[in-house]
Amino acid sequence: MTLMERAARGITPEIEAVSVKEGLEPEIVRRRLVAGRIVIAGNPLHDPEPCGIGEGLSVKVNVNIGTSRDRANPDEELRKARIAVQYGADAIMDLSTGGDIDSIRRAMLKEVRIPVGTVPIYQTGLRMARKSAVVDMDEDDIFQGIELHAKDGVDFMTLHCGITLETVQTLRSSERFTDVVSRGGSFLVAWILHNGKENPLYERFDYLLEMARKYEFAISLGDGLRPGCIHDASDAAQLHELQTLGRLVKRARSQGVQTIVEGPGHVPLDQIEWNVRLEKALCDGAPFYVLGPLVTDIAPGYDHITGAIGGALAAYHGADFLCYVTPAEHLCLPSAEDVKEGLMASKIAAHAADLARGRSSARDDEMAHARKELDWERMYRVALDPEKARAYRSRGHNEDTNGCEMCGDVCAIKIVREYLKKDAQKR
Amino acid sequence: MTLMERAARGITPEIEAVSVKEGLEPEIVRRRLVAGRIVIAGNPLHDPEPCGIGEGLSVKVNVNIGTSRDRANPDEELRKARIAVQYGADAIMDLSTGGDIDSIRRAMLKEVRIPVGTVPIYQTGLRMARKSAVVDMDEDDIFQGIELHAKDGVDFMTLHCGITLETVQTLRSSERFTDVVSRGGSFLVAWILHNGKENPLYERFDYLLEMARKYEFAISLGDGLRPGCIHDASDAAQLHELQTLGRLVKRARSQGVQTIVEGPGHVPLDQIEWNVRLEKALCDGAPFYVLGPLVTDIAPGYDHITGAIGGALAAYHGADFLCYVTPAEHLCLPSAEDVKEGLMASKIAAHAADLARGRSSARDDEMAHARKELDWERMYRVALDPEKARAYRSRGHNEDTNGCEMCGDVCAIKIVREYLKKDAQKR
Repeated sequence: MTLMERAARGITPEIEAVSVKEGLEPEIVRRRLVAGRIVIAGNPLHDPEPCGIGEGLSVKVNVNIGTSRDRANPDEELRKARIAVQYGADAIMDLSTGGDIDSIRRAMLKEVRIPVGTVPIYQTGLRMARKSAVVDMDEDDIFQGIELHAKDGVDFMTLHCGITLETVQTLRSSERFTDVVSRGGSFLVAWILHNGKENPLYERFDYLLEMARKYEFAISLGDGLRPGCIHDASDAAQLHELQTLGRLVKRARSQGVQTIVEGPGHVPLDQIEWNVRLEKALCDGAPFYVLGPLVTDIAPGYDHITGAIGGALAAYHGADFLCYVTPAEHLCLPSAEDVKEGLMASKIAAHAADLARGRSSARDDEMAHARKELDWERMYRVALDPEKARAYRSRGHNEDTNGCEMCGDVCAIKIVREYLKKDAQKR
Repeated sequence: MTLMERAARGITPEIEAVSVKEGLEPEIVRRRLVAGRIVIAGNPLHDPEPCGIGEGLSVKVNVNIGTSRDRANPDEELRKARIAVQYGADAIMDLSTGGDIDSIRRAMLKEVRIPVGTVPIYQTGLRMARKSAVVDMDEDDIFQGIELHAKDGVDFMTLHCGITLETVQTLRSSERFTDVVSRGGSFLVAWILHNGKENPLYERFDYLLEMARKYEFAISLGDGLRPGCIHDASDAAQLHELQTLGRLVKRARSQGVQTIVEGPGHVPLDQIEWNVRLEKALCDGAPFYVLGPLVTDIAPGYDHITGAIGGALAAYHGADFLCYVTPAEHLCLPSAEDVKEGLMASKIAAHAADLARGRSSARDDEMAHARKELDWERMYRVALDPEKARAYRSRGHNEDTNGCEMCGDVCAIKIVREYLKKDAQKR
């Protein structure tokens, strides 16, 4: 029995753990999980700490790491994974496409106790691309690639099941500036164009569900046709794929398979709210996993910021799971430092949305009290990144012990505290 | 005659210049300037390039720089000013509180052709604080300080006219965690508490307007009681002050004095939209100048990002002028590098809001085309920060000349381009 099926019978240990973490009644978590509105991804072969994603839960953040052909150092990727865990990532995706991909994935699964995701088509497509051409994959290659990851204990997989002959047709006549920017999406679009056949992940979706049941991995329905620039946002190809994903969500649920739906991408600020609401409507409240979204195209080197703006707004309007974006996006593989910067930006976005959706402000309140008391050590403890906060302040040359270099002897907090106190004594 | 009065008679060169820059009919700019909904700040003694702030114009960004007691190197501040101009700041505020404040301000005014603002009460209060106590300033000290800046050519000044005996009363009984975090605000609150008298900037507002007319500087009505943390957001003290500012806006307009209204501060995401709409309602559409706003308190070291999230949303909903926040906020004076990072974050927020408000996406579209063509030099040219984009990419080790390290030989764009082309040939 899958978790969805066990949950239909009663509260499970995973549900119990998530309800404690989130401060929510177990019965509420259970009901939403059964309805598919909350996902707790966990392949028993990996058995990660339960992490709930979905309706009414705090917003979660995923960190993408992994090698490429041009940079394939497994130790470096493991170091990034440790940094991701240290700074509060809720999940990690290993997107390795270089070096010994199998052993990197296995090392990652051994290293981290949070859910690990992959995009199996990368490895399958690459192997074929390096032999002849990506379009020469056959159905068995695709499903064997998925099974290989499942057997290693991968907790959730991005599978581009919504790219169909019909969606490719919308692409042929589209006015997109950047046709397809999803790597996995590009493999399948090319495959369909070349072979003139239906996407095996769509055509044999029931077989995929059997596999997902057997190994108990969650399916993250990839948005292979997500827009790659502001101009292409919310176009026919994107929306066509989303409708397909909505139908697949329901089929997966009926088989007890947990699903997440992936979303854009590049979206101007004014289209974010309804993009989220549309996903929730078309996919019957399935957890929404957004990449960014990036609210402008003109800031390479700062896309963690463009992504944090879009992510905060998306999460405020109901997106459940933010895929981080690093400053290296569109330019190169992220370094360990970029991973940290990207994660911090997404954590800020997620937390800002949590606050706005009525979750506890206890941590912010503690920061406020620490600031009023000019208690710097307490500020560092509460900070998302204590080391960075400390490094900034210690850069200053303070004469007095508890002010800061910015205001020096004219600290607003101190001045008002002094005169409010005198005022109270007078009265 | 002031600009507002000249504009009442017809289109002026400043209006002409702004209308060309913004792609708006001069008559529209003129009418909105006369109504006080657009401000073009320019002290004739400085005569900066006309920069329009307000209704229907692109969102503008201000950069705060300036010395402190603990870090007072004028050359460093001038270097920051040059960086600000280079990377597209629309205005600069010199908030110096250390070293020879007068000569720094004069050097700044000589250096930059964009509008320069100051907060004269800093200098006045500090001089007094270092002699005896900030509360020992008298009315003449305050007004002389303003006149000194006006005579140097300062284009706009933050003046905390909305702090009154009554607002201080709301503070006495408030449940704020961080009473007053505005430095200028703290001086005046302390002054009122100590002296038991009305704020001279409020009581003698007509005299202030005479001075603003004489030297033609714009008044940026300071929000001395802006909240200093998420908990304090949108409280009685803040809203009381905003109502006062709304009344002062109307009095200033009646005297032909241009005014901007300053706003928070620390605001959770869900309160941003109505904070902007409230300002627009209470202040009859006066340009709204927001500091951030910061959408969480827990990210010292990353407040340029928390501020960009809040700023983007505020600007989307109608804020006109974003005061940047640097990563050093709450910790120390920003370095030149921090100034650049803070400015980039605010520029992204401003541009994202412009896009969402229907302004041209030509630059984003050009980036999209450059990306599709894998034309890296064109991408750098279009990027907000060409140097950073180039540095990131050159960090990678590419074997082929036009892909990137991230995807290497499996570039989505290349793959789909190839098979779409073959497909078109077949059809």
